[in-house]
Amino acid sequence: MSALEKIAGRAEPGTLYGIGVGPGDIRYLTLRGAGLLRSVNVIAYFAKRGRAGNARTIVAPLLDENCRQLKFEYPYTDEITVADPAYRDAISAFYAETASQIAEALGRGHSVGLLAEGDPFFYSSFMHMWHRLEGDFPVEVVPGVTGMSGCWTRANVPITWGDDILSVLPGTLPEDALAQRLTACDAAVIMKVGRNLAKVRRAVEMAGLLDRAIYVERGTMAAERIVPLREQGDRTGPYFAMILIPGEGRRL
Amino acid sequence: MSALEKIAGRAEPGTLYGIGVGPGDIRYLTLRGAGLLRSVNVIAYFAKRGRAGNARTIVAPLLDENCRQLKFEYPYTDEITVADPAYRDAISAFYAETASQIAEALGRGHSVGLLAEGDPFFYSSFMHMWHRLEGDFPVEVVPGVTGMSGCWTRANVPITWGDDILSVLPGTLPEDALAQRLTACDAAVIMKVGRNLAKVRRAVEMAGLLDRAIYVERGTMAAERIVPLREQGDRTGPYFAMILIPGEGRRL
Ligand SMILES: C[S@@+](CC[C@H](N)C(=O)[O-])C[C@H]1O[C@@H](n2cnc3c(N)ncnc32)[C@H](O)[C@@H]1O
Ligand SMILES: C[S@@+](CC[C@H](N)C(=O)[O-])C[C@H]1O[C@@H](n2cnc3c(N)ncnc32)[C@H](O)[C@@H]1O
Repeated sequence: MSALEKIAGRAEPGTLYGIGVGPGDIRYLTLRGAGLLRSVNVIAYFAKRGRAGNARTIVAPLLDENCRQLKFEYPYTDEITVADPAYRDAISAFYAETASQIAEALGRGHSVGLLAEGDPFFYSSFMHMWHRLEGDFPVEVVPGVTGMSGCWTRANVPITWGDDILSVLPGTLPEDALAQRLTACDAAVIMKVGRNLAKVRRAVEMAGLLDRAIYVERGTMAAERIVPLREQGDRTGPYFAMILIPGEGRRL
Repeated sequence: MSALEKIAGRAEPGTLYGIGVGPGDIRYLTLRGAGLLRSVNVIAYFAKRGRAGNARTIVAPLLDENCRQLKFEYPYTDEITVADPAYRDAISAFYAETASQIAEALGRGHSVGLLAEGDPFFYSSFMHMWHRLEGDFPVEVVPGVTGMSGCWTRANVPITWGDDILSVLPGTLPEDALAQRLTACDAAVIMKVGRNLAKVRRAVEMAGLLDRAIYVERGTMAAERIVPLREQGDRTGPYFAMILIPGEGRRL
């Protein structure tokens, strides 16, 4: 803050909106999300290097192309993983820099809508911005339809009945841990399957659940693909892929 | 089918829409949900005896009051439970009768929008209609923002970070089972708390999680109430209540 600002103060900062854009089909955006997309000063989003960005692609039909856009390209490719300290350093520095760009816009009184695939408070990059900025700026989070809701809807399977326990498991877990967790639940969703597909499939088989498992790629999006996991084989899938194991609880 | 119908056929049946209405705040309804609310021939919904019905109350601001409405009142009150065979018989008979009323409207070519709180394929009564009708009629399910997404949004806590495992547990489970499952996960959501609150609270305490647990009543609705579980005490809560235990995974 400058000496002048200390004396004279400044205008109210803008609000940071975490906008859950839903699983992919734009019709599954919420009314609040749609209203904000068309009224914020800046739309911000994350994207893989050289890509359009999934969340940005999802909302394209409703975006005002004249709106200022802030694109944040992840500094890494799929080859390095979280276990690698170099990755952690790079991604922390990236998030710090991203947060400061958002803070700069908010500080000038601009409202910023940061897009999040699915729901913003469920395994998302938005959370790393929220964490850094919510102490200093007004924030509103707009919940969204999760990717998993989109996927089980399109797979046409209710996921939980009666007293079913649902476990949501990241496909990044070790094979044994996955198999053990799968054995202990009634219904499961395995996220972040992509490059972990072969391992995840072995874990599902170990848990005796291969016959119930459904593989969903890009649920509700244009290139959607839904097959029994048994038929999918082990080939690496896209980032937007998950496995569903529907519950078999009480039907009345 | 009459002899005439066998020869001459009949008009196409109507479509059954399972409309996820979201957690409570009408702004969290999807665009598809809003479009259907205003275009189906019949709006159908479940309600406790003598009540307006939660899903119906949620969408009231968008309903066309001239639209035909089918209200299905549950035949039981909170006093009997699923363990009781009389309950199972009563509820099965009720669902069979409800499904036949919906089938009758669909058969006459009317589209029916059956409301579901949150997401239709996640522990809902809609599933019991879907199960009975989807073989005979066209069905479209519209995913919704779940109650839990609404609750963690309003509690202002990201629920899962990094490799966190999330367990969704029905509060109807026995105390020991709940405590054991809670011990084995990183983040948890306990649904159907209401009358089970005292038991659920003991299970959370046994699992050493009382300090992290948040109690949310009617999340995103007018009478919303959010307090640390420790402060809630054991008094029975309303049906729309859940407990959140946010994950503490990797922050980058
Ligand atoms: C970082 S998490 C983001 C989750 C998101 N915030 C949500 O609420 O669904 C990314 C993972 O979500 C899953 N996912 C999200 N949307 C999906 C979709 N439409 N189809 C398949 N998988 C999806 C994939 O497993 C992907 O690896
Ligand atoms: C039969 S389940 C229906 C779940 C719904 N289909 C969904 O997607 O959230 C009912 C339970 O959901 C939880 N619930 C749903 N919406 C809620 C809200 N807005 N606030 C608190 N709890 C809610 C409560 O635990 C309640 O007992």
